[in-house]
Amino acid sequence: MRALVHRYTLTDPGDVGVVQAAMERGELDPARIVAVIGKTPGNGLVNDYTRGYLTQSLALLIADRTGAPSQAVMERVPFIFSGGTEGVLTPHVTVFSVDPAAEAGADAQPSLAVATAFTRPLTAEDIGLDGQVEATREAVRRAMAEAAIERPEDLHFVQVKGPCLTAAALNAALSEGLMTAGDTPDKSMAWSRVASAFGVALALGEIAEETFDPTAMLRDFGQYSSVASCSSGVEVRVNEIVVLGNSRRWAGPLHIAHQPMVDALDIGAVHRVLEDLGLPAQPQLSADQRARLAAVFVKCEPDRSGKVRGEPHTMLNDGDMHAQRHIRGAVGALVAGVTGDTRLFVSGGAEHQGPDGGGLIAAIARRGEC
Amino acid sequence: MRALVHRYTLTDPGDVGVVQAAMERGELDPARIVAVIGKTPGNGLVNDYTRGYLTQSLALLIADRTGAPSQAVMERVPFIFSGGTEGVLTPHVTVFSVDPAAEAGADAQPSLAVATAFTRPLTAEDIGLDGQVEATREAVRRAMAEAAIERPEDLHFVQVKGPCLTAAALNAALSEGLMTAGDTPDKSMAWSRVASAFGVALALGEIAEETFDPTAMLRDFGQYSSVASCSSGVEVRVNEIVVLGNSRRWAGPLHIAHQPMVDALDIGAVHRVLEDLGLPAQPQLSADQRARLAAVFVKCEPDRSGKVRGEPHTMLNDGDMHAQRHIRGAVGALVAGVTGDTRLFVSGGAEHQGPDGGGLIAAIARRGEC
Amino acid sequence: MRALVHRYTLTDPGDVGVVQAAMERGELDPARIVAVIGKTPGNGLVNDYTRGYLTQSLALLIADRTGAPSQAVMERVPFIFSGGTEGVLTPHVTVFSVDPAAEAGADAQPSLAVATAFTRPLTAEDIGLDGQVEATREAVRRAMAEAAIERPEDLHFVQVKGPCLTAAALNAALSEGLMTAGDTPDKSMAWSRVASAFGVALALGEIAEETFDPTAMLRDFGQYSSVASCSSGVEVRVNEIVVLGNSRRWAGPLHIAHQPMVDALDIGAVHRVLEDLGLPAQPQLSADQRARLAAVFVKCEPDRSGKVRGEPHTMLNDGDMHAQRHIRGAVGALVAGVTGDTRLFVSGGAEHQGPDGGGLIAAIARRGEC
Amino acid sequence: MRALVHRYTLTDPGDVGVVQAAMERGELDPARIVAVIGKTPGNGLVNDYTRGYLTQSLALLIADRTGAPSQAVMERVPFIFSGGTEGVLTPHVTVFSVDPAAEAGADAQPSLAVATAFTRPLTAEDIGLDGQVEATREAVRRAMAEAAIERPEDLHFVQVKGPCLTAAALNAALSEGLMTAGDTPDKSMAWSRVASAFGVALALGEIAEETFDPTAMLRDFGQYSSVASCSSGVEVRVNEIVVLGNSRRWAGPLHIAHQPMVDALDIGAVHRVLEDLGLPAQPQLSADQRARLAAVFVKCEPDRSGKVRGEPHTMLNDGDMHAQRHIRGAVGALVAGVTGDTRLFVSGGAEHQGPDGGGLIAAIARRGEC
Repeated sequence: MRALVHRYTLTDPGDVGVVQAAMERGELDPARIVAVIGKTPGNGLVNDYTRGYLTQSLALLIADRTGAPSQAVMERVPFIFSGGTEGVLTPHVTVFSVDPAAEAGADAQPSLAVATAFTRPLTAEDIGLDGQVEATREAVRRAMAEAAIERPEDLHFVQVKGPCLTAAALNAALSEGLMTAGDTPDKSMAWSRVASAFGVALALGEIAEETFDPTAMLRDFGQYSSVASCSSGVEVRVNEIVVLGNSRRWAGPLHIAHQPMVDALDIGAVHRVLEDLGLPAQPQLSADQRARLAAVFVKCEPDRSGKVRGEPHTMLNDGDMHAQRHIRGAVGALVAGVTGDTRLFVSGGAEHQGPDGGGLIAAIARRGEC
Repeated sequence: MRALVHRYTLTDPGDVGVVQAAMERGELDPARIVAVIGKTPGNGLVNDYTRGYLTQSLALLIADRTGAPSQAVMERVPFIFSGGTEGVLTPHVTVFSVDPAAEAGADAQPSLAVATAFTRPLTAEDIGLDGQVEATREAVRRAMAEAAIERPEDLHFVQVKGPCLTAAALNAALSEGLMTAGDTPDKSMAWSRVASAFGVALALGEIAEETFDPTAMLRDFGQYSSVASCSSGVEVRVNEIVVLGNSRRWAGPLHIAHQPMVDALDIGAVHRVLEDLGLPAQPQLSADQRARLAAVFVKCEPDRSGKVRGEPHTMLNDGDMHAQRHIRGAVGALVAGVTGDTRLFVSGGAEHQGPDGGGLIAAIARRGEC
Repeated sequence: MRALVHRYTLTDPGDVGVVQAAMERGELDPARIVAVIGKTPGNGLVNDYTRGYLTQSLALLIADRTGAPSQAVMERVPFIFSGGTEGVLTPHVTVFSVDPAAEAGADAQPSLAVATAFTRPLTAEDIGLDGQVEATREAVRRAMAEAAIERPEDLHFVQVKGPCLTAAALNAALSEGLMTAGDTPDKSMAWSRVASAFGVALALGEIAEETFDPTAMLRDFGQYSSVASCSSGVEVRVNEIVVLGNSRRWAGPLHIAHQPMVDALDIGAVHRVLEDLGLPAQPQLSADQRARLAAVFVKCEPDRSGKVRGEPHTMLNDGDMHAQRHIRGAVGALVAGVTGDTRLFVSGGAEHQGPDGGGLIAAIARRGEC
Repeated sequence: MRALVHRYTLTDPGDVGVVQAAMERGELDPARIVAVIGKTPGNGLVNDYTRGYLTQSLALLIADRTGAPSQAVMERVPFIFSGGTEGVLTPHVTVFSVDPAAEAGADAQPSLAVATAFTRPLTAEDIGLDGQVEATREAVRRAMAEAAIERPEDLHFVQVKGPCLTAAALNAALSEGLMTAGDTPDKSMAWSRVASAFGVALALGEIAEETFDPTAMLRDFGQYSSVASCSSGVEVRVNEIVVLGNSRRWAGPLHIAHQPMVDALDIGAVHRVLEDLGLPAQPQLSADQRARLAAVFVKCEPDRSGKVRGEPHTMLNDGDMHAQRHIRGAVGALVAGVTGDTRLFVSGGAEHQGPDGGGLIAAIARRGEC
């Protein structure tokens, strides 16, 4: 097997013409697409409909090109979109496909491996709670097995997209006497991300099952997954999961690395993950280096202490501009400054996904010539 | 003479207690303050009253400590505040004072020099037009002479704050049949910055007076000042000007440097200005290096082409979050990632202030031990 | 012929299940739908993708139910959506269909008549300029003829949706040396609305062709159409037009009325339009009266003088909340207070559409029993 | 005693020239001012500094005119400002003064009575909790006694402004192991309002002390005060309280009335409160009637069910525009449509202040000629 990664700039979620053109010229085989991860130009908050819009547009395109019904496409392919391209960020998609015919050589270096999984539909009683944790844990393990990633240290990125509750859904649950995680849509989004993160951490053994304590969620931020990147939104009903790692069972020049980010100024982590991939920035990637960079994924959050490196920030007190919009724009620019490329997946809401107040960065690159 | 630079974090424009405490412990002499440049936690747009609030609070404090009336303080000391601490940025002030007793040694290296100037009150007929250009040009020359900065290459930063027109003022002007620069408050803010920038460029000879063409304003972005940083707001009636450079006539360990930024990803410029000051970042300043950094000033703008390095950004199409808020948060984080310090003056609206789509960075540092 | 009006609440542009259910139970014949006008939950500004998303969703549904390709549906049916449901407003669609079999009685009262038209695709050189004015004028006349509305006083509402230019499109036009109407996306949206409004006014003789002066656009606000309601957005390429009036050639209990609104506090106009339809509010419609109200359309704008009834408003100076969001929420609540119903089409940007600083209101109701 | 009410439009919190002019021409006696209630042009959320700015400006003015220190003025006069003049609303202040020399006639009708009180400074352990409830209850009773308002039905409006916690303060409390009411600044603002409202309800016997259950706060919305209007903000440390009612012990033509609002469309309540004051609107106050209206106070909230009259609203799901900004603009316009005047005090956050999903309206008017 061989994992292929294509990146396309898509400024309007209703216009997927550039992806269609790539299919038409044979660059992208719609039947082999296994996952799409991307940034859309909405606000990245509860009322961001650009994620659902792009999902609908791409599912229609793939359905049209493969003959499968659109609904079946959505059930097979995780479309994981994070809204919000603040600052220099560019709306784009990273399309993962798998060529099953490619064979890894016996003595090959480990290559990029990818697999996906879905949980059952999650209800108001699951979201942010044990139901979502457990369903995620189980699905991540399924995906790892499928990807033939054996050692935990070979798994570098687990992207999860899960459901959250709107004000109307929260109110409906309340009137039925259900306990929900969070009492506002914003909080529901956070709890959904957290339950997914704990599900990943349990699947990987980053948190031991025997010591797992649900009350640590949104309280003990020392407990986290170092490879989980979790989003939530109103447009999905199940947790959709994409795992990325390196495996000798996979072929091709792509490989992946990741680093934790200790805070929003951790530019050293950006340099280190690029060095792990053989791409030292001095202080920015050269054009040749940049051409080998296939995709970058970043998870970050506004430090809940209200400070960065001891000095106050204003992200959490701003009534007009949401803290997630602040932090995505900031960390996105920091990373883009080192890579020289604005097509980054930068997602806010990093609770229990990397160190508290920081997050993580993962990157995929093509190996250079020897 | 010796220029002193103190930096204080001020999260609430109504609470200047930390500055008062510095005065009380003898660190800061209120009578010797010549200028204050800072970031306030408002939105940095027309309806940002945090700039005026902090001005009132600081003027009252200085008045109280010196016995001068508050109004006289405001007429003597430029208080130049840029609103908007998006992302990791910290609300703070940089206070410039002058010790007239300090004498520069005969063979000393050039040290930081500072001087200020004010124009006459500017009217709706001046703002963004010839009146503001000419008044700025004249005031900058006065300030340079006062600062004893002789060679143009020794001038590194000219901060200007000028007035703009609110919707009410624009309407009043319209009903009187006056022509104004810009027909919305936002546009008025831009034209005010531009007229100030051309005034600086003319004063320094960056644009020759004989070739000056007012129609180049907001049209020919190849014409710019490489050291002008211009703001505008409803809270001032005159252009307030602060010039900063190096001069052998001044004493002390501080010196200043500047670099143009070619675009919002120009992390190389950040590294270069620090290297000019003897502070190479690898890739971030160490704690020791950071202790020598006294102040950083950045001017930036959303690229009006709608692209950064060939890829689209969404800053200019966002109806909820102003483009200036986008770009300040982005470039602020890029710079903070290299310096490791969030107390940066980052101001948007860089029309004709540095290269088109980019801007400029200036920094002040203490020289290290030899 | 008989015009039918159905109203459906649609909070998520990707979920048109309630419309599908109405089709399935025979309430709504997809093949007979001629136009859809609605409010979507986006910001109603340039980067509002909820309009395009709902268009895609409804076109797919109608295509699926009628067997026509989705593209053909979009070319036949105007989907005119205004984003922004600020305050009490409810996202919803008003679906117009025509029953061709119904015959008007010889002595019947005039009943609601509806017809649509499309212009040719409009380019950057047309939008906001003569090309759009002329194309609109011609299309409105076609639609009036089709609707069999003979007397101008029987035409009560002309809804137009036209294209506008994004920052990228403006920049492309600039680099090709094209003159565009407006230099920002926001301005382009305004110019598009204005050109459409002048097209309507010319078609109806509200402005005489021989005295038409293009320089009056966005300058002489005494020139306006009293029935035009014009929107613009990035999601259309042509002007889509829906005309509504009363005609003895049409059957059924529905009829329509309209009133100009002189300013944002003109609650008297709301009462008058309801009285025109036999529905006096005291001070709010009763449940019985409200059951007869089929649809309400409002056009409004923030008074550009910066004042309402002599007192200042802050809508035009707000850097965080767009003036259109302010005014839609305000006028929407004023009207909803009288009707007791939040499913209102309230659209901002009323330049040359009703009196300056005000706008217009149109309403459709079922006649009561005699 | 006689209560005087003056209303001044103040668009810039730093410019109180119109109030100064009123003092200079003898209209307003600075020494007799007992309270100021007003709307400022900020966002009305945690990071709204316009409230503190206007407080500082007015306190300085009164200090300057009376010779008292500014700090003493702030400790004597409640300055209660609500930020956010969305839609048609006008930034303004209503100044209450008392003429102690005026004597009420023996058979006079009850006239407007006003009195104020302050609580002790409230800490992170009081805000939103029992400490704030009890301190408010006690202070309201003091103020009622001072105002000589004997019967509960003669008390029509109790305005409270209390402190809330910023992100930094919440974090500090957390690190000290303190329990706070609310874990975000937004929530802290809500809890502060709620504790104040329960304090008022207990003082007036609207909730009996023996049945008071703190767990009803933010849970049982059937428990409320029908006259409490509570705000919160970072700029105060104590609860500031103003009580308004009618009393035969007071002289003058002013009187006050109030009505509950059952929801955001309750235009009937607006008509009724005006009728209570002898000012029937048909459907809007005439100029003569409007001249008799001295002040209007409105408290409102986005219905937490997510619906108004059975139809969904989007206020609680909007990530870009805060729900409080939505509802103030909506209800403000509804009321302004009936009064014809935009100088309204409209404040969001009506938890336990009037019926759930609604709020209350109070108005002061001059009695007409007999």
